[in-house]
Amino acid sequence: MPKPEKHVFICGQNRGPGHPRGSCAQSGAGTVWDEFAMAFQQRNLNGRFALTNTGCLGPCNGPHVLVYPEGVMYGNVSAADVATIIDEHLLSDTPVEKLQVPPFIW
Amino acid sequence: MPKPEKHVFICGQNRGPGHPRGSCAQSGAGTVWDEFAMAFQQRNLNGRFALTNTGCLGPCNGPHVLVYPEGVMYGNVSAADVATIIDEHLLSDTPVEKLQVPPFIW
Repeated sequence: MPKPEKHVFICGQNRGPGHPRGSCAQSGAGTVWDEFAMAFQQRNLNGRFALTNTGCLGPCNGPHVLVYPEGVMYGNVSAADVATIIDEHLLSDTPVEKLQVPPFIW
Repeated sequence: MPKPEKHVFICGQNRGPGHPRGSCAQSGAGTVWDEFAMAFQQRNLNGRFALTNTGCLGPCNGPHVLVYPEGVMYGNVSAADVATIIDEHLLSDTPVEKLQVPPFIW
């Protein structure tokens, strides 16, 4: 693919159930991934934006979604938030303030 | 960690030996990861730069290293190239031209 306009990284780190630090996979990152992948396909966005799964991104208030080139880190993302991130951030270049982690985390 | 100055993503996709498409893990991504991780630790760079492993980044001329916020994609990276990427791109803000994949790939 050509260089994407924006690149969405989704943490898929899995520490298993009950781990004291938690992990994005145990917080529902899989459903967030599925929602992005399905939306990209249904809305024909795969040519413009890239979607990549990652290991640990650092903070563990997941599911975490990180969007570059802005370097905006979202936390506690649910499948219901995905359309908002796509509509406001990816397509309208306006990061979603209410979903961003606080500055001391990122 | 605070938001890093630059974020280094290393593809760790593994399709097993002999796969027709190849994969970064089979091309030596593990040694590239180790070299970055060791250099970040030895040179005390973990506070400024982030290092994250990923699934498939798209092209498969690996090992692939992708650096944001510039969105520069390196291909066929070897452990010997890591110091160059750190010195020139991360620390001096000058992406390493000769290691970048061609525009039709990224």
